[in-house]
Amino acid sequence: MRIPFDQLQAEFERVLLTLAFTKEKADLCARIFAENSRDGVETHGLNRFPTFVKFVKEGLIRPDAEPIVTGLLGAIERWDGNLAPGMYNATLCMDRAMKLADDNGIGCVAIRNTNHWMRGGTYGWQAADAGYIGICFTNTIANVPPWGGIEPRLGNNPFVIAVPRQEGNIVVDMAMSQYSYGKIGQYAADKKQLPLPGGYDKQGNLTTDPEAIRETQRALPIGFWKGSGLSMILDVLLTALTGGKSVAAITNSGNESGVSQCFICIKNPIMHEALINELIEYTKSSALVEPDSPIRYPGESTLARRQESLETGVHVNERYWQELLAM
Amino acid sequence: MRIPFDQLQAEFERVLLTLAFTKEKADLCARIFAENSRDGVETHGLNRFPTFVKFVKEGLIRPDAEPIVTGLLGAIERWDGNLAPGMYNATLCMDRAMKLADDNGIGCVAIRNTNHWMRGGTYGWQAADAGYIGICFTNTIANVPPWGGIEPRLGNNPFVIAVPRQEGNIVVDMAMSQYSYGKIGQYAADKKQLPLPGGYDKQGNLTTDPEAIRETQRALPIGFWKGSGLSMILDVLLTALTGGKSVAAITNSGNESGVSQCFICIKNPIMHEALINELIEYTKSSALVEPDSPIRYPGESTLARRQESLETGVHVNERYWQELLAM
Repeated sequence: MRIPFDQLQAEFERVLLTLAFTKEKADLCARIFAENSRDGVETHGLNRFPTFVKFVKEGLIRPDAEPIVTGLLGAIERWDGNLAPGMYNATLCMDRAMKLADDNGIGCVAIRNTNHWMRGGTYGWQAADAGYIGICFTNTIANVPPWGGIEPRLGNNPFVIAVPRQEGNIVVDMAMSQYSYGKIGQYAADKKQLPLPGGYDKQGNLTTDPEAIRETQRALPIGFWKGSGLSMILDVLLTALTGGKSVAAITNSGNESGVSQCFICIKNPIMHEALINELIEYTKSSALVEPDSPIRYPGESTLARRQESLETGVHVNERYWQELLAM
Repeated sequence: MRIPFDQLQAEFERVLLTLAFTKEKADLCARIFAENSRDGVETHGLNRFPTFVKFVKEGLIRPDAEPIVTGLLGAIERWDGNLAPGMYNATLCMDRAMKLADDNGIGCVAIRNTNHWMRGGTYGWQAADAGYIGICFTNTIANVPPWGGIEPRLGNNPFVIAVPRQEGNIVVDMAMSQYSYGKIGQYAADKKQLPLPGGYDKQGNLTTDPEAIRETQRALPIGFWKGSGLSMILDVLLTALTGGKSVAAITNSGNESGVSQCFICIKNPIMHEALINELIEYTKSSALVEPDSPIRYPGESTLARRQESLETGVHVNERYWQELLAM
């Protein structure tokens, strides 16, 4: 079913205001939850809201906390998130990285003790909408085996790069696993095979069977050893920059809370959009695998989905919607 | 066969000095070619040297050129490489990014009109050996199809992240294709299948057959649509930051020359090495797929290979070695 964006946001806000969120924080978090569903990332919009509320009630997310600055060196600032809501901290961090970029061309904020930011792309769009290049990444609880290993020891550590463009920002928002467990669960519920191998079965063979991957917990990192290495060094970077929890420390704590994140902004006075449009057109000029499936630049589908949601309402899963209304 | 490192470097230098390289530039480029072979990246060491010399002779690489600074905004500097040797330009850029990081915590140099830097990892190790976090990336000629396309329109755009560590730097150096054509050619010459799917056959099926991939030119981006998107946005970033040639412009020029690159350095006073070592140990604690194949952190194998090369000589392909001696 479909719900108008404003109504969805208002329902999130109503619930958050019962949970010791200030009006400002409730506004911001409700908007981001609604935008994530609006942009088609329902797994980090409506569908994730019950878990978010549970974490708040358990004290893993502290709605009344505020992040603090713990250090500044040139254009790099270090923060402690004090376990405030991840979306609130992340929005403030990217905002501050933009201000540091105003003063230095490039700015960086590294934060420890923060919480799940829901959709990483949110903060890429935030920077690009304001005209900045934005780069950010986070660590997570362990959910992917390292290359050569069977048990999960790496996070899927989403990595975001966003570049502003008049005709639509270009935004990559990618986790280091080929498919999230949310997506794998969706295919399992629909009794469908994954379109491409997403992990290993009990015999150690690559498989498209979502149930087999849920059983082994051996989800595939993108590009096999390459995504494994990239996931690990993003965690190393976050740990080096923040002194906060690594994937190891998050996992050992038993809850995905107190994660580490990094936000980098670049102020680029001349964006060379004509050259960028040329490279997009060139990329799209490749002969197609499926004549009806055009090649898209990163972010293009998000924009199309956003437009559709604003015109016809945001698609919601009815069960989660009823759950929200009953909260 | 194996050759002492110094002898290999001396042979490169001897040839470069016949090609209008100053002593300083010949030294630097010869050292990097020899180090690439020493570290096991022979495809961008000895095996690539004949192509490098050919490009110099054709005027695509200009040994007498010097890069110039075209702009400075805070901690970001823009350069024009003037088609000087890529390894020379890249070394100067990373060096300058470190100095900018000394002053600003973080520094960035974006360069256009430069040339192939051979092994990207070289500049990651350069930064990490000096105690800095280093991030760099380059574009290339089109050699990977975008997701949904058949014809190559994206570069494999290598991406490097390096973090210094007492017990061995952690360095990711990854191209956006699952296997390079150099590697695919090696498997074809050895009449072996790739260990994992590396591209598509004529029927459009994923395949491990190197000959089939050479025929279709449909090499696989890492993580399917994810590597395709990451490759594209790295090219967008480079084009936005430098105003130089994108993958489209490089490919249309007919030669992989005049590429664009970006170098970012971070000065991080406290590296939190104990926490990093903890996360490495945690990652390695996963049960192994193959009991005799331990999990390695990115850069670990490079260091082991380097040690072996320094003790027993650098492994060289005899044909290329004879070719070098005859130059």
